[in-house]
Amino acid sequence: MHRYRSHTCAALRKSDVGSTVRISGWVHRVRDHGGVLFIDLRDHYGTTQIVADPDSPAFKQAETVRGEWVIRVDGLVKARTEDTVNKNMPTGEIELYAQEIEVLSAAKELPLPVFGEPDYPEDVRLKYRFLDLRRETLHKNIVKRTQVISAMRREMGNVGFTEYTTPILTASSPEGARDFLVPSRIHPGTFYALPQAPQQYKQLLMVAGFDRYFQIAPCFRDEDPRADRLPGEFYQLDLEMSFVTQEDVWNTMGPLMSGIFEEFAEGKPVTKEWPRIPYDEAIRKYGSDKPDLRNPIVMEAVTDHFAGSGFKVFANMIASNPKVQVWAIPAKTGGSRAFCDRMNAWAQSTGQPGLGYIFWRKEGEKLEGAGPLAKNIGEERTDAIRTQLGLDDGDACFFVAGDPAKFYKFAGEARTKAGEELNLVDRDRFELCWIVDFPFFEWNEEEKKVDFAHNPFSMPQGGLDALQNQDPLTIKAFQYDAVCNGFEIASGSIRNQSPETMVAAFEKVGLSQQDVEDRFGGLYRAFQYGAPPHGGAAFGIDRIVMLLVGAKNLREISLFPMNQQAQDLLMGAPTPATPAQLRELAIRPIPPQKKD
Amino acid sequence: MHRYRSHTCAALRKSDVGSTVRISGWVHRVRDHGGVLFIDLRDHYGTTQIVADPDSPAFKQAETVRGEWVIRVDGLVKARTEDTVNKNMPTGEIELYAQEIEVLSAAKELPLPVFGEPDYPEDVRLKYRFLDLRRETLHKNIVKRTQVISAMRREMGNVGFTEYTTPILTASSPEGARDFLVPSRIHPGTFYALPQAPQQYKQLLMVAGFDRYFQIAPCFRDEDPRADRLPGEFYQLDLEMSFVTQEDVWNTMGPLMSGIFEEFAEGKPVTKEWPRIPYDEAIRKYGSDKPDLRNPIVMEAVTDHFAGSGFKVFANMIASNPKVQVWAIPAKTGGSRAFCDRMNAWAQSTGQPGLGYIFWRKEGEKLEGAGPLAKNIGEERTDAIRTQLGLDDGDACFFVAGDPAKFYKFAGEARTKAGEELNLVDRDRFELCWIVDFPFFEWNEEEKKVDFAHNPFSMPQGGLDALQNQDPLTIKAFQYDAVCNGFEIASGSIRNQSPETMVAAFEKVGLSQQDVEDRFGGLYRAFQYGAPPHGGAAFGIDRIVMLLVGAKNLREISLFPMNQQAQDLLMGAPTPATPAQLRELAIRPIPPQKKD
Repeated sequence: MHRYRSHTCAALRKSDVGSTVRISGWVHRVRDHGGVLFIDLRDHYGTTQIVADPDSPAFKQAETVRGEWVIRVDGLVKARTEDTVNKNMPTGEIELYAQEIEVLSAAKELPLPVFGEPDYPEDVRLKYRFLDLRRETLHKNIVKRTQVISAMRREMGNVGFTEYTTPILTASSPEGARDFLVPSRIHPGTFYALPQAPQQYKQLLMVAGFDRYFQIAPCFRDEDPRADRLPGEFYQLDLEMSFVTQEDVWNTMGPLMSGIFEEFAEGKPVTKEWPRIPYDEAIRKYGSDKPDLRNPIVMEAVTDHFAGSGFKVFANMIASNPKVQVWAIPAKTGGSRAFCDRMNAWAQSTGQPGLGYIFWRKEGEKLEGAGPLAKNIGEERTDAIRTQLGLDDGDACFFVAGDPAKFYKFAGEARTKAGEELNLVDRDRFELCWIVDFPFFEWNEEEKKVDFAHNPFSMPQGGLDALQNQDPLTIKAFQYDAVCNGFEIASGSIRNQSPETMVAAFEKVGLSQQDVEDRFGGLYRAFQYGAPPHGGAAFGIDRIVMLLVGAKNLREISLFPMNQQAQDLLMGAPTPATPAQLRELAIRPIPPQKKD
Repeated sequence: MHRYRSHTCAALRKSDVGSTVRISGWVHRVRDHGGVLFIDLRDHYGTTQIVADPDSPAFKQAETVRGEWVIRVDGLVKARTEDTVNKNMPTGEIELYAQEIEVLSAAKELPLPVFGEPDYPEDVRLKYRFLDLRRETLHKNIVKRTQVISAMRREMGNVGFTEYTTPILTASSPEGARDFLVPSRIHPGTFYALPQAPQQYKQLLMVAGFDRYFQIAPCFRDEDPRADRLPGEFYQLDLEMSFVTQEDVWNTMGPLMSGIFEEFAEGKPVTKEWPRIPYDEAIRKYGSDKPDLRNPIVMEAVTDHFAGSGFKVFANMIASNPKVQVWAIPAKTGGSRAFCDRMNAWAQSTGQPGLGYIFWRKEGEKLEGAGPLAKNIGEERTDAIRTQLGLDDGDACFFVAGDPAKFYKFAGEARTKAGEELNLVDRDRFELCWIVDFPFFEWNEEEKKVDFAHNPFSMPQGGLDALQNQDPLTIKAFQYDAVCNGFEIASGSIRNQSPETMVAAFEKVGLSQQDVEDRFGGLYRAFQYGAPPHGGAAFGIDRIVMLLVGAKNLREISLFPMNQQAQDLLMGAPTPATPAQLRELAIRPIPPQKKD
């Protein structure tokens, strides 16, 4: 027989009854039922019930074992009696009568329980991560994460992509977030950087003639801790394709990601045909470029109904500034003064002056718009608004007025708030879409200049011609995001692979050809030697896994995360370097300045 | 029709004749045959021949294109005439008559040719890596590398392993090679390290209850450049299993790796049943723990034949020191004075005093041992040696005498030299084996103390009892290497998961329990809380790919390698950091010391 096991702890079935077997695992629980000991033995695969009765030669040893000890058990498989069969357990029809128990590894008293979902401090969990990982939920989440990534690899392969690995010790990227730096020993005074993303390498791969690249790519950003991002490293499904338009990227990745979601959604519906929503439309309808489409509320402009109306606050704003609009946030089933007042109070709590509203109720046979706004604009306009928005008895509508560029975020938050408060959001589904046609430039009010809105490597729609002849703030980019349930899960674009267009684009934000060469020399040089049209995207794996397992915290889907202070409490990092290491690297830590 | 292509450059066949199609790619070559232009258009998938005759509306444009321009071609597929069919090309039965050509990207004059295998300086190749990668051999090697890795993932999955990703920003490992360090911005004066291998994390995964781990793992060592290792990062197929003995690792990974080799060996024979050769035996037979088993030469001790013989040099050495042995290196077909003298001269060129030999030749009917040694020891002993080694007319044998611990390396080199010179090595096969039972400790002559011979985390054979009661230098480890054609392709062991045994092992090399806690705190702590027996291995992916594609240089199987001075010439790394970056990281480069 094998030294440690003939079966895993999930393997034994009724058909094994009568066999002598050997299993090994962790003591999950020991119960004493009138002198007979029951041990639940656990491994990666499952749990098996061990029985040690006082007649067993193993009984004495069984009495000594404690939770989380690792033991080997030899025993006879017996059928459970009908009333003790556990249908919820794959091994629930049998139990193993112990004949011999060997302790492979004892355990000291545990600093945190491995059972259930105890509310333990983060620092203890992370220091003893190897114990925290034994919890059923976390163990399952981690395994599911590996399965999701494995499915991504499989599906990318199925549609003709090849996984290429790009360097991790590379050059500092002057745009974007803060780099992690690695001092070079061989070239004192200089540094490598860890990649924020393999953006330039994947584009160089296209220029080198590889056609469909992907990578489960580690990315590094030295950012201050945020609730939704762990310090240090994160993973992207990074991809790039040559000789494609943006429709090719959408038509390839949309169905593929729908398939991945479906595979792990446990029956929840998943969008098959992803809507393609222009950025401007997303802002107008949802007040966000990451709309949660499970929320059925769609905002509409109702400016005309307020222009020249008796509600002077809005009417005057509209009259004095052509940019001013009034947006309506229709809220079905929200038609009570209590709810409308609650929304108004919420708006005030976020720093807004308030949130105007109308709600509709039956007064006898008559459908009446109630609230101060309705009174001010009168019955006819109130009813025109109701008709435009398709509202009825028991519904409400909220209004935000001003320059949409300034209020759209708040309007989007109000839409989310109303949808959630009224339970209009169907939580048990995955709503996916593309947000497309992002603006290429944006106005930097502080510096009074034009800046890149997103990715400077994207191709502007209209190309060189648009850059030369169009108001830059009206130029769109071939740039898109994928969004699921209100979270951005991917970002991508068709790249600007023309050196001439690249220089023209950078000139608009005040950078010269020399700047382009200095900052993106590798890529700029490559584009001089035959660069195919190409584009791609990068999907955030952590976010996708969080959505799929329903985790709220990145720690619940990461194997060995750092804490929010960017420390690895398990291994003890970061730590001071030795004087010899510092000497070799030719660097010296600067002692902290004394505060005056 | 699609904006860029209806087909790839490898897709068109005789069945497409008559179709109007669109393809895009790089201009591989332009030939002018009596006014008709032939363009070989290349993409990732293959090449298609374009024809532009002077009547074609595309002719004018075709005249302008140059090598490595990226173009789109619309045209009519025509069958080639029988005498112009190219059987060696998948698209060789057709050609595409161009109707329209669009230049998607022009190319400047190339700094290095993309054709063939030009002997170009490394710095130009690396600076223009995106061009070098367009070479057919390198392109194929890179694709094959991705296929090998993909096959590894597939096969590891098939035998029940799961791929877990371990952190890249982690703790400095105090044993082993030099770490790359990453200064922490949030904790000034402290550093992360990039992992030399995920050794501790994979063991922690086992303690956490995950059963069969693998990872295509990036590893980082800040070592001085070596011919067979690129600076910086390299990749391992890293794996670990719980509840296993070393036989389980061999029985799992041997057949799996044989399968991988067979998949990519292009018909070359691959070892199916890997011999398991104890370390001592490998040294004795092959003079190396990385024996090339394609070389049929097996060394044998022939000490007795020289003891008390007329060859006084050997006889006196044997008489004066019981450690002295004489090893024979039998060399079939090497039986000529010219060859034996060449071997002797080679030995002298490596710093040896010489290399004694006997060779056999027929003198009339009589088989005679020739050379000075044969004369000195006489006919009977000469013939006894010949018989022991199974040699015959036309064969030779070389002899090395002394303390085997001191001469085995040279003897191994002589074995290799003789095998190669005599063409005894069958180059067209993959000979795989396990080298097992490595010594646990070794004697450090300089410090006059016992040291770990290899991995301090390995389990000593005999466990705690052996450590307490056995001469440490006789203890073997459950430690093994995989070897292919003379190269180590993997190393592994069963781990020491007992805290008590771990401390006892470290004590032998002069380290205390406190040292263990300080240096390997995460792992040592974990072993206190229920650690399963576990073991694994790590296979060197770069080496395996080099063997499979027959590459001599790592640059030929790596996508974006650094040069031997650890510089990325393509992206420009490493570079000085900005003052702002240094300030944020609270470090200061130490200016180089002036030489006195």
